[in-house]
Amino acid sequence: MLASMTKLAGRSLIGFHEGQGSLKPLYATNPATGQQLQPGFIPATEQEVELAAQLAAQAFETYRQTSGRERGAFLRMIAAKIESIAGEIVERAGQETALPAARLQSETARTCHQLRLFAQLAEEGSWVNARIDRADPDRKPLPKPDIRSMLLPLGPVVVFGASNFPLAFSVAGGDTASALAGGNTVIVKAHAAHPGTSELVGRAVQEAVRECGLPGGVFSVLFGSGSQVGIALMKHPLVRGGGFTGSRTAGRILMDVAARRPEPIPFYAEMSSTNPVFLLSGALRERGEDIAAGLHASFTLGAGQFCTKPGLVFLPEGADAGAFERKLHELVEGSRPFHLLTHAIHSSYASAIGGRRALDGVDTVAESRATSSEGFAANAALFASDAQSFLGSGLESEIFGPTTLLVRHANRDQILAIARSLEGHLTATIHGTDEDLREFADLIAILETKVGRLVFNGFPTGVEVTHAMVHGGPYPSTSDGRSTSVGTQAIFRFTRLVCYQGFPDRALPDALKDANPLGIWRMIDGAMTRDLSSRPA
Amino acid sequence: MLASMTKLAGRSLIGFHEGQGSLKPLYATNPATGQQLQPGFIPATEQEVELAAQLAAQAFETYRQTSGRERGAFLRMIAAKIESIAGEIVERAGQETALPAARLQSETARTCHQLRLFAQLAEEGSWVNARIDRADPDRKPLPKPDIRSMLLPLGPVVVFGASNFPLAFSVAGGDTASALAGGNTVIVKAHAAHPGTSELVGRAVQEAVRECGLPGGVFSVLFGSGSQVGIALMKHPLVRGGGFTGSRTAGRILMDVAARRPEPIPFYAEMSSTNPVFLLSGALRERGEDIAAGLHASFTLGAGQFCTKPGLVFLPEGADAGAFERKLHELVEGSRPFHLLTHAIHSSYASAIGGRRALDGVDTVAESRATSSEGFAANAALFASDAQSFLGSGLESEIFGPTTLLVRHANRDQILAIARSLEGHLTATIHGTDEDLREFADLIAILETKVGRLVFNGFPTGVEVTHAMVHGGPYPSTSDGRSTSVGTQAIFRFTRLVCYQGFPDRALPDALKDANPLGIWRMIDGAMTRDLSSRPA
Repeated sequence: MLASMTKLAGRSLIGFHEGQGSLKPLYATNPATGQQLQPGFIPATEQEVELAAQLAAQAFETYRQTSGRERGAFLRMIAAKIESIAGEIVERAGQETALPAARLQSETARTCHQLRLFAQLAEEGSWVNARIDRADPDRKPLPKPDIRSMLLPLGPVVVFGASNFPLAFSVAGGDTASALAGGNTVIVKAHAAHPGTSELVGRAVQEAVRECGLPGGVFSVLFGSGSQVGIALMKHPLVRGGGFTGSRTAGRILMDVAARRPEPIPFYAEMSSTNPVFLLSGALRERGEDIAAGLHASFTLGAGQFCTKPGLVFLPEGADAGAFERKLHELVEGSRPFHLLTHAIHSSYASAIGGRRALDGVDTVAESRATSSEGFAANAALFASDAQSFLGSGLESEIFGPTTLLVRHANRDQILAIARSLEGHLTATIHGTDEDLREFADLIAILETKVGRLVFNGFPTGVEVTHAMVHGGPYPSTSDGRSTSVGTQAIFRFTRLVCYQGFPDRALPDALKDANPLGIWRMIDGAMTRDLSSRPA
Repeated sequence: MLASMTKLAGRSLIGFHEGQGSLKPLYATNPATGQQLQPGFIPATEQEVELAAQLAAQAFETYRQTSGRERGAFLRMIAAKIESIAGEIVERAGQETALPAARLQSETARTCHQLRLFAQLAEEGSWVNARIDRADPDRKPLPKPDIRSMLLPLGPVVVFGASNFPLAFSVAGGDTASALAGGNTVIVKAHAAHPGTSELVGRAVQEAVRECGLPGGVFSVLFGSGSQVGIALMKHPLVRGGGFTGSRTAGRILMDVAARRPEPIPFYAEMSSTNPVFLLSGALRERGEDIAAGLHASFTLGAGQFCTKPGLVFLPEGADAGAFERKLHELVEGSRPFHLLTHAIHSSYASAIGGRRALDGVDTVAESRATSSEGFAANAALFASDAQSFLGSGLESEIFGPTTLLVRHANRDQILAIARSLEGHLTATIHGTDEDLREFADLIAILETKVGRLVFNGFPTGVEVTHAMVHGGPYPSTSDGRSTSVGTQAIFRFTRLVCYQGFPDRALPDALKDANPLGIWRMIDGAMTRDLSSRPA
């Protein structure tokens, strides 16, 4: 047990130091009651931002040289520390988010699973993409030198906690785990909506840093606003990268900060996605009611505050969709009341729903009959429109909260025109029979250019943390559609290629030494192998 | 033989169309004589930029679906077409660049080697990074879906021809080859210094497009200025990425254009690098004269107009460096005259050399005694400074041309302080004995954070085109230090990850089908294999 856990200090964790500022504290609010939670959290000062960056840069000199085994032990220790105070975390996170305990327990488990998956990746070691092109002293006209490349970490990375994943995408979430596994040091800008949870998890990480004998600057958590502390961190010359999950507006501001620095740095923002769903006729006829139930569960999961929430549903007008529409209507009307995460999300949802209700060409099909006005309460709402009204409208933009929009189309051409018109999203989903899929092969081809994940006969919420997962997509769903923020390929975001030419074996990193002491997969003269000696000399 | 080759049209190649504009033509100049070369080349109009982008986007719908085998055949056909007119290319390129025929012949060979290397990569197919996480219907609490990911191309890519590689980094150079191998369509903005070479190579590619039965929009070459045609291309909403080799000023302008678009796109600029060389005492004592000869050859190669030119040489003051310095002095004084590529490079070189001569703390150690004033003639120059004068000065910036700067230091601390102060470069080189290397392990650790390629006891010019090559580095050497523009890993620049969840085998791309019909390396449930059935079910 961690003795320090019983009382929250409300101070930034700057390496092993505690924040000393005296700015006006920020308070979390219980979304279910609207009540302010104690204690206040003091925003980091400019000097503290500077200190965190300096410590992170110093610690990087040591931490970048740690072995995969050492990084694995560190990540596993973080997971163990979090598990040792899971009850306390779930309790505080429940107060700060109004999310049910079961969800927060499973999110805690997911967070620890992520940490252990990245531990495994670091320990196994092949992720570094080691490549060896051997010398050929007899090549004409010039001898060919020995060249060996691998991925190395970038340096101090800023991670922005996400409102909607107080654990799995916050202080010790996926961005932090992937950055640390790759050998980077991390400064977290804690999300203002769950500062207590952030402090608890931050202290768990801090204890792991200490017990693993690492320098304190490997990890810091700063409290404060995005516009002050967040931007100051992204502008700091010692910071080498950033990871963010949040709104399109905030994400784009930070993207621009990263791009306009004297030395621009990689910045991975996961911002905004409406996750279009295409319901094809055969599937609607065969299992319209099941699809309605699945869709309703998906778009109201977490009160509709998932980046993968299906917020746009394209379906044929007419009889095929009848059972689906009736069932969905009924489910929405019977929805329980939801509590949104923050006052800002609550206001935005109310205004977006109001705007949609008033819009020509959009019908309000169903609204939840739930009555609750406590805290940040919000009701599910279902809207409908048609292809003509949709094209060229602003209806593609994300509404964070328990709502979705049906768009009815008259024919195949309309659905392809809609697909072509889409901007970038994290996911697209198709429900269809085998026959539907054959008929709509060109729809898949279009969607491959629009999203990072294509889901067939499923729902986009529920993002597996695996090797093949892609949680990314073209702008504006992310700032960098080449990457994923979930799954093991997230480690590549905070790394870069370096090669060594003509180096003596002794001076090379272990991953590139002749004898392959780490036993990793490597590409030697273009062929994959785990052994050097197995290749022709 | 290509009949159309005998006469240059001076018009953009827009898919299978010829540019129709009537703007004022641009003329190339022979750098050896200063004489204007015929014909004039008509800049592309705004409408032609639009047409090229539209055609590239349309062609992408077809070209992205081609197999690796088809792309390989196309790239090999381009190489064959270039080889069939190699004599004509070398002749015209010689007039436009004043580079020796032997250099242009070997650059033509390198260009064709690059095309065939990327052909092989496309044909072999494993580069797509296929990953399969198999379903587990029995997983609790929820079944695990089947998820499969791979890399897909981005779309139309703009390639900027480089002045200093009229073949290997221009119309059918490394950027074009890697973009096409990955399934992207390409629009080249030809460099104004070698438009005739660009037209010849462009027609060779155009013939290959036609003979392979591909849509014309797969490839276009536009003439015109960077500030007009180049920026218009980078701003075009259908363009999905860019590759550039050139100056820091132009590169940064284009970076900012790419980052400030409504939808920012990946842009890979290879811009500016001074390629620091560290000469350690043991090596200087053992083979000072050899190092001097190697360094002189390297910094004057291609008239000092390589991005990997060693423009900064750190060495100990005192007796150890004596033989090295005397020999280098003598070689510089005896250097033949060089011709720079363009009027702009010639003026910049003259003004930079003049500036350096006048600088306090910098000595002019030696200048070539060659006398030539024809065309863009320029003489080799050697400068020297010391650690104190270097730190905090502007002496780190690149001078394009046959010059380098020696920086003498008094001790180990100074050399480490200098290394820590460096900005990003493409390469860093160390000359040392085994003992030197042991003593300077921390120097290597610092340089790993500063460059993309570390060279030991060699010289940075001469960039191998292989699997492990990294021709990239932190800003300002490139816009994106995570990437390389030379070698097979360049293919990853114009791709992004996409995953398929729950898809029937039939609807998956071949790379992800159960039976592994392409026989490629894949990661299945985290383990590398070329076979599906070999993995436990």
